Amino acid sequence: MTSAALHPVSELPSDQGTETPITDAEIFAAHEGGKIRTRSTMKLDNQRALSIGYTPGVARVCEAIHDDPALSRKYTWTGKNVAVISDGTAVLGLGDIGPKAALPVMEGKAQLFEQFAGISAVPIVLDTLDTEEIIATVKALAPSFGGINLEDISAPRCFEIESRLDEALDIPVFHDDQHGTAIVIAAGLINACKLTGRHFKDLRVVISGAGAAGVAATKMLMASGVQDIVVVDSRGIIHPDREPLSEIKQWVAQMTNPRQLQGAIDNALDGANVFIGVSAGRLGEEQISRMEKDAIIFALANPTPEVPLDIAHKYGAIVATGRSDQPNQINNVLAFPGLFKGALEAGATRITKTMKLAATHAIAQIGIDDLAPDRIIPSPLDPRVMPAVSEAVRQAALNDSSSGATI
Amino acid sequence: MTSAALHPVSELPSDQGTETPITDAEIFAAHEGGKIRTRSTMKLDNQRALSIGYTPGVARVCEAIHDDPALSRKYTWTGKNVAVISDGTAVLGLGDIGPKAALPVMEGKAQLFEQFAGISAVPIVLDTLDTEEIIATVKALAPSFGGINLEDISAPRCFEIESRLDEALDIPVFHDDQHGTAIVIAAGLINACKLTGRHFKDLRVVISGAGAAGVAATKMLMASGVQDIVVVDSRGIIHPDREPLSEIKQWVAQMTNPRQLQGAIDNALDGANVFIGVSAGRLGEEQISRMEKDAIIFALANPTPEVPLDIAHKYGAIVATGRSDQPNQINNVLAFPGLFKGALEAGATRITKTMKLAATHAIAQIGIDDLAPDRIIPSPLDPRVMPAVSEAVRQAALNDSSSGATI
Repeated sequence: MTSAALHPVSELPSDQGTETPITDAEIFAAHEGGKIRTRSTMKLDNQRALSIGYTPGVARVCEAIHDDPALSRKYTWTGKNVAVISDGTAVLGLGDIGPKAALPVMEGKAQLFEQFAGISAVPIVLDTLDTEEIIATVKALAPSFGGINLEDISAPRCFEIESRLDEALDIPVFHDDQHGTAIVIAAGLINACKLTGRHFKDLRVVISGAGAAGVAATKMLMASGVQDIVVVDSRGIIHPDREPLSEIKQWVAQMTNPRQLQGAIDNALDGANVFIGVSAGRLGEEQISRMEKDAIIFALANPTPEVPLDIAHKYGAIVATGRSDQPNQINNVLAFPGLFKGALEAGATRITKTMKLAATHAIAQIGIDDLAPDRIIPSPLDPRVMPAVSEAVRQAALNDSSSGATI
Repeated sequence: MTSAALHPVSELPSDQGTETPITDAEIFAAHEGGKIRTRSTMKLDNQRALSIGYTPGVARVCEAIHDDPALSRKYTWTGKNVAVISDGTAVLGLGDIGPKAALPVMEGKAQLFEQFAGISAVPIVLDTLDTEEIIATVKALAPSFGGINLEDISAPRCFEIESRLDEALDIPVFHDDQHGTAIVIAAGLINACKLTGRHFKDLRVVISGAGAAGVAATKMLMASGVQDIVVVDSRGIIHPDREPLSEIKQWVAQMTNPRQLQGAIDNALDGANVFIGVSAGRLGEEQISRMEKDAIIFALANPTPEVPLDIAHKYGAIVATGRSDQPNQINNVLAFPGLFKGALEAGATRITKTMKLAATHAIAQIGIDDLAPDRIIPSPLDPRVMPAVSEAVRQAALNDSSSGATI
């Protein structure tokens, strides 16, 4: 993390977003023709260049890769590209809008990969909702990419799709709505605990939402040492006696809720010191007032947080949101660019728990330099973040034999 | 074709390829890290840009496309991108080398799309050889692209894959090894006939090879008015009494060979005035000497033409090859960049016969300015070609109701 010293916070790009409201005209103009392009690394304006990049020269590289497929990483762009793959079923707050309407989000994600980590990214939106077809399609196109970033695929299908692809493919597969969010939540929580003098093992965490982000946050916090997590969905607290429960919620019921709470979210909030909202649910003052004094409140729904901000600040010592116009934005872009960069540089074939924890700690560590209740986590534009995350993930991959790292 | 006047032939980039031999070191160095990248059209270095290209601004564009999916062409890169898709079964002269080894060729093709026509192109190599799986995969990922360029898929699977995708998808599907090659062969033949005073209806054409290029050249020449074509494969002349014949060769047997020839290629060459080689077969002097005086010989196999060049020139008034170091190179890059550009600009949903013929005539027309036995066709680097082809194809699409053109 040498780079930290090179980029003091005062030199970060300033936030120009709050002065003039963004207009529709401005948004549509920026999208005209799409937001990404492919570009050749060579100029093909003479016969020699054509003979090197294309026939007959390219045949030498084909033969070399045919003899040793591992050379594909070195002599094609798969050493530093990813596919951003979605079926368009869980896009932003818009829900199931289909592949074509989802494409601008995936292009945006591809932009972020390129701009933040120098990774080429190709948005692939799929004209199928069928789990088996999605898995078959991604498996078929996998040799074209160095990694697979799954995006905006609705729960519970996202869990099976990710785990089966992770098993089947020899390149990293990562569902960002799960793990990207969980990594940044955990990083923020580490620093929120520092500020409020709490320890993970003593936390009482309520997670509102049992979709991609809620389940992944649960796993991540458990892996980080949190022992008391209660997960709540639209039907209330998840516990083993509730029926019916999907496969993933059965897992949640078995692994969480040590005090065996039941009923409405109010019961979970009684005496809790952490609230993590990753749902569309809304909470009022009476409910939040049940929490421990100086609570930690992460109300991440966009654009409307689960807890009105005045109430959150009245009861919470630390408040984080998903909004770019508020302090403490829990933003996935803190994680995924550096995470994939580190994984690709290490030649990892999977993104392991160790690598995700390394990303969490790298992000939290940068926040420490300037820690305050409204600065528990660095800005997504902080140039120290990506290099720190990628280096931490790369090292973690090299030290974790289950990552498959080879470099 | 205003642009023709702007780029006289004397200003073409000079051929720098013949002086110093290209070394392996040079080829591999050029391939290190891959030959293409994605790039954002916006700089995402401040909060305002993030809010426009990504959340929350992007949601407005998603909603607009959800309301009217046709806007996808305008507000995503699908208005000017294509997928270059291969299963790696028929790559250059190397054959079935698999998807990873095929990727450098597809990257090269993607470079050509970008450099010659400003079209973003994404190489997708597939980890399956199964016709149904290939079709299902391409259908699933189709909403991500404005066109599908199939590449290096072996015959006879390529015929079914292309025709079924063409039927199923609402974007242009084009197997370049078939139609790109056929378009440029037909363009060269038009000008070769001009030089030798022949007419298409009087030609006797022998096509050696009944794979992707041979079958497509047959169709293209028939559509252009050639009446006497004899197609030969490794087992000799294709005729209706020969058994067994694949489905596509049954079609060839029914539609060609009006004099009902049988036996070896020698019988076909007797008195023929055009030879088109798109195979690995080799012919000797005794065979070529059977052709009409001042024959037209297109010996396109790479790197070794079907006919030794000294023999070809001894008996042929016009000789074309597939080699970049020889005059009259029949090179697909004359066709596919402009063809896709024209199709995309017209909003065509298919590439029709009319559009292919328009490309053929546009290429031939440029050759006419400077016609000579060793200049029947423009150089792939001639900057007049792509604009002329794309404009001719765009116009043809607009005038052909079966193209689906909407713009």
